[in-house]
Amino acid sequence: MIVILKSNPNPEQLSSLIEWLQSKGIIIHTSVGASRTILGLVGDTSALDMDLIAALDIVEDVKRVQEPYKNANRKFHPQDTVVSVGSTRVGGGSLTIMAGPCSVESEEQVVTIARAVKASGATMLRGGSFKPRTSPYSFQGLGERGLAYLKVARQETGLPIVSEMMDLSQLPLFADVDVIQVGARNMQNFDLLKALGRQGKPVMIKRGMSATYEEWLMSAEYVMAGGNPNVILCERGIRTFETYTRNTLDLAAIPVLRKLTHLPIIVDPSHATGKNWLVEPLAMGAVAVGCDGVQIEVHNDPAHALCDGPQSLRPEVFDQVAKKMLALHAFTRRQES
Amino acid sequence: MIVILKSNPNPEQLSSLIEWLQSKGIIIHTSVGASRTILGLVGDTSALDMDLIAALDIVEDVKRVQEPYKNANRKFHPQDTVVSVGSTRVGGGSLTIMAGPCSVESEEQVVTIARAVKASGATMLRGGSFKPRTSPYSFQGLGERGLAYLKVARQETGLPIVSEMMDLSQLPLFADVDVIQVGARNMQNFDLLKALGRQGKPVMIKRGMSATYEEWLMSAEYVMAGGNPNVILCERGIRTFETYTRNTLDLAAIPVLRKLTHLPIIVDPSHATGKNWLVEPLAMGAVAVGCDGVQIEVHNDPAHALCDGPQSLRPEVFDQVAKKMLALHAFTRRQES
Amino acid sequence: MIVILKSNPNPEQLSSLIEWLQSKGIIIHTSVGASRTILGLVGDTSALDMDLIAALDIVEDVKRVQEPYKNANRKFHPQDTVVSVGSTRVGGGSLTIMAGPCSVESEEQVVTIARAVKASGATMLRGGSFKPRTSPYSFQGLGERGLAYLKVARQETGLPIVSEMMDLSQLPLFADVDVIQVGARNMQNFDLLKALGRQGKPVMIKRGMSATYEEWLMSAEYVMAGGNPNVILCERGIRTFETYTRNTLDLAAIPVLRKLTHLPIIVDPSHATGKNWLVEPLAMGAVAVGCDGVQIEVHNDPAHALCDGPQSLRPEVFDQVAKKMLALHAFTRRQES
Amino acid sequence: MIVILKSNPNPEQLSSLIEWLQSKGIIIHTSVGASRTILGLVGDTSALDMDLIAALDIVEDVKRVQEPYKNANRKFHPQDTVVSVGSTRVGGGSLTIMAGPCSVESEEQVVTIARAVKASGATMLRGGSFKPRTSPYSFQGLGERGLAYLKVARQETGLPIVSEMMDLSQLPLFADVDVIQVGARNMQNFDLLKALGRQGKPVMIKRGMSATYEEWLMSAEYVMAGGNPNVILCERGIRTFETYTRNTLDLAAIPVLRKLTHLPIIVDPSHATGKNWLVEPLAMGAVAVGCDGVQIEVHNDPAHALCDGPQSLRPEVFDQVAKKMLALHAFTRRQES
Repeated sequence: MIVILKSNPNPEQLSSLIEWLQSKGIIIHTSVGASRTILGLVGDTSALDMDLIAALDIVEDVKRVQEPYKNANRKFHPQDTVVSVGSTRVGGGSLTIMAGPCSVESEEQVVTIARAVKASGATMLRGGSFKPRTSPYSFQGLGERGLAYLKVARQETGLPIVSEMMDLSQLPLFADVDVIQVGARNMQNFDLLKALGRQGKPVMIKRGMSATYEEWLMSAEYVMAGGNPNVILCERGIRTFETYTRNTLDLAAIPVLRKLTHLPIIVDPSHATGKNWLVEPLAMGAVAVGCDGVQIEVHNDPAHALCDGPQSLRPEVFDQVAKKMLALHAFTRRQES
Repeated sequence: MIVILKSNPNPEQLSSLIEWLQSKGIIIHTSVGASRTILGLVGDTSALDMDLIAALDIVEDVKRVQEPYKNANRKFHPQDTVVSVGSTRVGGGSLTIMAGPCSVESEEQVVTIARAVKASGATMLRGGSFKPRTSPYSFQGLGERGLAYLKVARQETGLPIVSEMMDLSQLPLFADVDVIQVGARNMQNFDLLKALGRQGKPVMIKRGMSATYEEWLMSAEYVMAGGNPNVILCERGIRTFETYTRNTLDLAAIPVLRKLTHLPIIVDPSHATGKNWLVEPLAMGAVAVGCDGVQIEVHNDPAHALCDGPQSLRPEVFDQVAKKMLALHAFTRRQES
Repeated sequence: MIVILKSNPNPEQLSSLIEWLQSKGIIIHTSVGASRTILGLVGDTSALDMDLIAALDIVEDVKRVQEPYKNANRKFHPQDTVVSVGSTRVGGGSLTIMAGPCSVESEEQVVTIARAVKASGATMLRGGSFKPRTSPYSFQGLGERGLAYLKVARQETGLPIVSEMMDLSQLPLFADVDVIQVGARNMQNFDLLKALGRQGKPVMIKRGMSATYEEWLMSAEYVMAGGNPNVILCERGIRTFETYTRNTLDLAAIPVLRKLTHLPIIVDPSHATGKNWLVEPLAMGAVAVGCDGVQIEVHNDPAHALCDGPQSLRPEVFDQVAKKMLALHAFTRRQES
Repeated sequence: MIVILKSNPNPEQLSSLIEWLQSKGIIIHTSVGASRTILGLVGDTSALDMDLIAALDIVEDVKRVQEPYKNANRKFHPQDTVVSVGSTRVGGGSLTIMAGPCSVESEEQVVTIARAVKASGATMLRGGSFKPRTSPYSFQGLGERGLAYLKVARQETGLPIVSEMMDLSQLPLFADVDVIQVGARNMQNFDLLKALGRQGKPVMIKRGMSATYEEWLMSAEYVMAGGNPNVILCERGIRTFETYTRNTLDLAAIPVLRKLTHLPIIVDPSHATGKNWLVEPLAMGAVAVGCDGVQIEVHNDPAHALCDGPQSLRPEVFDQVAKKMLALHAFTRRQES
């Protein structure tokens, strides 16, 4: 961390700052310029509150040199994290394919889709039971009943299930869900993240709609700081001025996160674009860029889906997309080797 | 609502759509153009799920004509809502001044500040006990103990208290708090909003960091749809590319919301800018534009505040700002009359 | 176009509006609802000024149904445009690879790089002579001299050249440049676009930093409306809140533009990310999603480049990337067939 | 400027960097930490190309401590700049009111409006002759003829005139215009800025639609570096996700620029909001926050304006707004004294 002092800092306040920093085990390198003095802080600065220091009268600016996250940081954990989910593994070179309906609507629906996506190569079943909807008048999901249907589908197909938890009070209901999803709107619901850090189930954190990589990784850090290392990140598009697509899918997130963190990275082209004809090209792009997996919405009757229909693929279309993704994944792995 | 059909829509699907709409009590006006047919839907369309309709094969686009919120809509509720809080009232021509520390740190601190801000003209005491912090390693607030100190300060000064609730599990702790604040990161925590709609205490909803007016009003609608009409809106800046200020305060929100809704509008220049020397000019701007009140951070020792120090005013500075705001408010009211 | 009238419109103003629209050859369908009347305008509405209509006292809102661009619109021109540049062609299934230095620095530099990139598979040489730099104190490009060096490199290698024109006064200097590039900051320099529409050389328009697809296509429309059909679009990232990368590359632009327009689409991963280690993964992503080509910065000594060094590849790295892109392009074409 | 080196930098490259910096007159303070070495550069770093340094293999990151602008920087020019325009002055405590039509349509129109706004207290006449329009099919302005009408209106009223120049080729036409306006889309048209720096007329630079304060000040720096100190800044809103208003007016720009620069600051609430009923409240806000002036669109027949009608005020409404602004300005000045 670098602290830039104002010109002619009060000497008493300066020595009080220096003492306080030293009491935290920080070593200080002072660089006196013509018009300004700069303090270089060396040591574990991730626990220092930048805002506190910036608040001091004698300080003009504070700049970070180190990332504020530790558990999620590849520098301190060079090996890729591979998250085990049932008999499958997320990360480590394989391609995870999470597929299923946006909303669970009935047992029959979810079992039918689960069978279809498994046959096409999906490795996990996704389905929403608690739905964050902008309007209180829109369908809010089947809740506990939807989770029960997902479990039936898991029993029928063997696919592990991933579903979104919206509030920490729902934690007991998710005891038997394989991956707990944190939605984009909850990426900074810190109480929820803390609760998920106190248990051991894999947690998949979707990127917030206007979140930076660092903010996203700080949310992962919240879960990991609580003791749960099983975190998966999911890029699902960020808000931009473009309204033709629902959000703008940021595929640069894949190689950037690969460098900054050891956690696996999933891409969701369905929510990112909001249009089903954009799912295939962007899924192919995500695989070519090097993601660990994709999450795709599949519905046997998109036009009658209870939510988010326009972005769902029919099972027969998904079958094509899954086969092309797997072929591309194999091709890119041959290129690398 | 207007439904734009694709060219040559399948007649069967079209009549099925028309029947379904009519079953919802919607009257349909059809306008057949050279290349396109447009359906004008007349009736209560706020409960129709736009996405569902847009998902149909025969539909090219759907556009709203009416706002998707009802309880918060001025069209259906022309009179200004005035929210009673203890012996004070928010809205209705007076200027509410909420002041106090970002974080409650001790009983002495909050009582001292409460007395000072009351003497300067504040009508409500604000103070955070549950703090949403980006880093798990930053101070997270005193929690329940902080609420207790706020109540002591209320007893000492008579000022009603406003404090942020972060999770619905905290609801019992807020039974004796006068206004429950929903933070920007929780603006779309729908479970929290629903819980706040099922109780009657005033709720102040801060605008989400990248939220539109409509999304913000839909969050108010969540609370109101549950039966609680006591909603206050608080503009606290939105995220833009400008990083010199923490966020960009959007003062146009005041007259726009005045037109769209009947709910009172508070402005928070402290969080919006993140710099204490910007609080006064923007507070004056907010009053001149016509807000119902402001929320300002005041700390007796900003440089040692446990959080957000750089944006806090010292009590003696706040005293000046409060007096100038009240004089400006009186001046603008004379201008109007 | 749909015109939503206010309740109880002044009948005289309404009939004056209707007459004016009819005088423009527009057919009007009126849909009278309980609280609102809606006019559906049928005919060529692209020449109608939406703002003019929205300004009328009796009008509440105006919504477009048709796109405001014609020449660039795939609806009116279903076949893909293929732009001939020297002996190469942009669009139509091949993969264009534009490579070269951000800034032309010397004849030797540009000839050396041109030879290298040609050997690796590049089909066009890119190089900047007029450089838009944020600071007046930064290197502004070699100007006319740089163009001369590019032409030498073309003579040596046969590669057509593409270079950025910053002001219409430079048009005579570009008489012998193969593709004239319009930079992101000039995407809405309408006088420049008009000038480029009055000549016939291919024009490559980079997307503005915060431009929507529609605004970008309107800039293409400016050139095409002047009579020049040879327009190429280049996605180079948009500004978002993420600052780790210089901009956020929007690969969804490829399939979206493929649907909206018939013009070829190039992707520039170098400027989009600003980091050379991100060029390869995003170039692969762009090819997998289906672009018509890429533009990549190559420099024989990136650390001493006069501008934008951090995003340049060394020729030997570019060689690998080019080979992998071409192999991936061949693979994806086999998948399609 | 601070240069953060990678761990174990190549010693040869490091000493080559240090020599190069010293050759530019920079003094270097080295701070060696456990894992990283930091160079503090002291001296005139505004001419150093950050990108060049960041490109070096041994460099991990570069951070600025000083602003990259000099002529526009208040640190080097503490007194407020006051720009003389005809007999009026912009800056220095007075309130400049620029009013007039978005587009000049006829001599009669502009003379009528000029007389009206002068009577209401306007100090300058604004009017567009060259209009940047998103569509090539929209009205593009009267061009040279419009400038002639403005000059007639100036002769009739004595009001100096301000009008937008779109391309440097128009410079001779603006020889007799009092203030040359650079539009938001041209804020980074560097050739235009350089041309305006080589002449002496006052230049008013509108903020780019997604520009930061620093980028905006760098555009002022372009003009000033050429030798023209007569620069005025105009805040006209920035693009955000909110689409209800055309742009989001950033009133924090006023006090922030007041601190960063000595140049006068004008606010344009008409273009920022795009709605005439928002002009008054935001104009009042701008005055209360402390701007040097406002620019307001006035049209005698907004519903038939050739462009941007919805944001224009009728002269009788403008008369009210002008009187209220002047009264508020007088009130706030009394408060300050």
